Amino acid sequence: MGKLLIVGTVAFDAIETPFGKTDKILGGAATYISLAASQFNIKSAIVSVVGDDFPQEHMDLFTNKNINVSSLEVVKGGKSFYWKGKYHNDLNSRDTLVTELNVLADFSPAVPEDFKDADVVMLGNLHPSTQMSVINQMAKRPKLIVLDTMNFWMDNALPELMEVIAHIDVITINDEEARQLTNEYSLVKAAEKIQQLGPKYVVIKKGEHGALLFHKTEVFFAPALPLEEVFDPTGAGDSFAGGFAGYLTETENISFNNLKRAVIHGSNLASFCVERFGTERMKDLQKNEANERLLQFKELTQFDIELQ
Amino acid sequence: MGKLLIVGTVAFDAIETPFGKTDKILGGAATYISLAASQFNIKSAIVSVVGDDFPQEHMDLFTNKNINVSSLEVVKGGKSFYWKGKYHNDLNSRDTLVTELNVLADFSPAVPEDFKDADVVMLGNLHPSTQMSVINQMAKRPKLIVLDTMNFWMDNALPELMEVIAHIDVITINDEEARQLTNEYSLVKAAEKIQQLGPKYVVIKKGEHGALLFHKTEVFFAPALPLEEVFDPTGAGDSFAGGFAGYLTETENISFNNLKRAVIHGSNLASFCVERFGTERMKDLQKNEANERLLQFKELTQFDIELQ
Repeated sequence: MGKLLIVGTVAFDAIETPFGKTDKILGGAATYISLAASQFNIKSAIVSVVGDDFPQEHMDLFTNKNINVSSLEVVKGGKSFYWKGKYHNDLNSRDTLVTELNVLADFSPAVPEDFKDADVVMLGNLHPSTQMSVINQMAKRPKLIVLDTMNFWMDNALPELMEVIAHIDVITINDEEARQLTNEYSLVKAAEKIQQLGPKYVVIKKGEHGALLFHKTEVFFAPALPLEEVFDPTGAGDSFAGGFAGYLTETENISFNNLKRAVIHGSNLASFCVERFGTERMKDLQKNEANERLLQFKELTQFDIELQ
Repeated sequence: MGKLLIVGTVAFDAIETPFGKTDKILGGAATYISLAASQFNIKSAIVSVVGDDFPQEHMDLFTNKNINVSSLEVVKGGKSFYWKGKYHNDLNSRDTLVTELNVLADFSPAVPEDFKDADVVMLGNLHPSTQMSVINQMAKRPKLIVLDTMNFWMDNALPELMEVIAHIDVITINDEEARQLTNEYSLVKAAEKIQQLGPKYVVIKKGEHGALLFHKTEVFFAPALPLEEVFDPTGAGDSFAGGFAGYLTETENISFNNLKRAVIHGSNLASFCVERFGTERMKDLQKNEANERLLQFKELTQFDIELQ
């Protein structure tokens, strides 16, 4: 059974959208990644840190999903990372109201012994030095290292980010960030330039407009499912990454055709995530629900055409 | 052979994009629609109006493509419709700098006798009363009436627009306009509401993010081809409409599966349009070039996935 190592934040989020607001609820990149990845038949572990304000019920959620939390460090007397944000009316942009790093400020990741041979490493959004430290702790080169990052690190830790980018296989990044990183407006050109920095595969996430997968001259596009209700976009990108990495860990097949399927699985799981606040939808998502919606993705994009 | 009747502006455009600017060049909705539709094996005619400043070479372009211009009225001493616009850096938005209606102000459309039994009517962007007048002149109900419109008419002629919408089969509209028309942010809900106004099919155009086709509970998504260079978006929506209507006229098959193909053909032709200024790319486009790019659309979106 394939092993997936997940690095990223485990946090409290307070979220406001046009449809309501929440107090501190479970959030964080590693949380969404691991919940999405738990849809697949794999072994997974989280490397992260929380304070002792982190409730046992959240820990139980992970263990009940067979997510190994032996390296989810609990700092005595510490407070968990906290983010508060408010989405604008169109849900495509948001303001960060509060960011409290707390225990994350001094976090030094420790990869569990039995995941130092993980097949896939999913580096969720975190300081690039922390991501690099995880790569360096691996006993052997994983079959696939996937990196998710954001503009904050381009602005504040570009040299460290460039070093991580040079060591990975797949980068997932949103369209504006791809443009910022490369100074290219065309996403085709941006993806070309990013491949020259190291990654063989570039996934550009466009939110409600879907995601593009680039590899050399090949391009694949996965739409986002048009939904009646989008409630809360928090965690959509991480759920995408978790579905992508989880599927590749299960199938252990790093071909372009299989990466296409991984992008579809990622889009599929992200489409559930946004239907409820926080992790509400993901934590109870059933395999048959995910499978049914995969059929909708097929319906949505498949066509036959004859050339004359 | 199927007959397509095209209504819309034939005009002069002056365009400024981040990549350059043009003097007055050939433009207009009916121009782009007819050039795109001329890729198909159909009979087509334009109903429109120009002034006697409209050069013979443009008329020849239409006739050389077998586009009937007997009802492209030339007003002696009149000036052709003129639009001048400037695109912003991201090419997704633009400012209109000049709009001179000229001969269009008093335009009263006359459908040519031999197109009163057209199979498909493509109502390009124009005053809804003009569009309605064309519908009223048809000797028999066309198999399909397609309407393209824009927010300007929602703001300035909503009752007339609603009347046309009640008489058509397919509306093509962009995402912001769909939201404005229905007061729904979700495009799924917007498409439902628009279907209640009359059209059985709703095509929502999202520019560089592709197009969605809705019919009852069915949805189909056609991506825009990711391009290295987008030079000038002018006419992309009209080329899409022309490809869509042209393909349906040729195939004479109004099933959802065939409408899917029509959306792909529309997206395909629009992808050429934006590669050069104005009609430059469309006027010389060859069938084999269009066919080759259709294969890219297949590559871009087709995947196989097994459910477990």
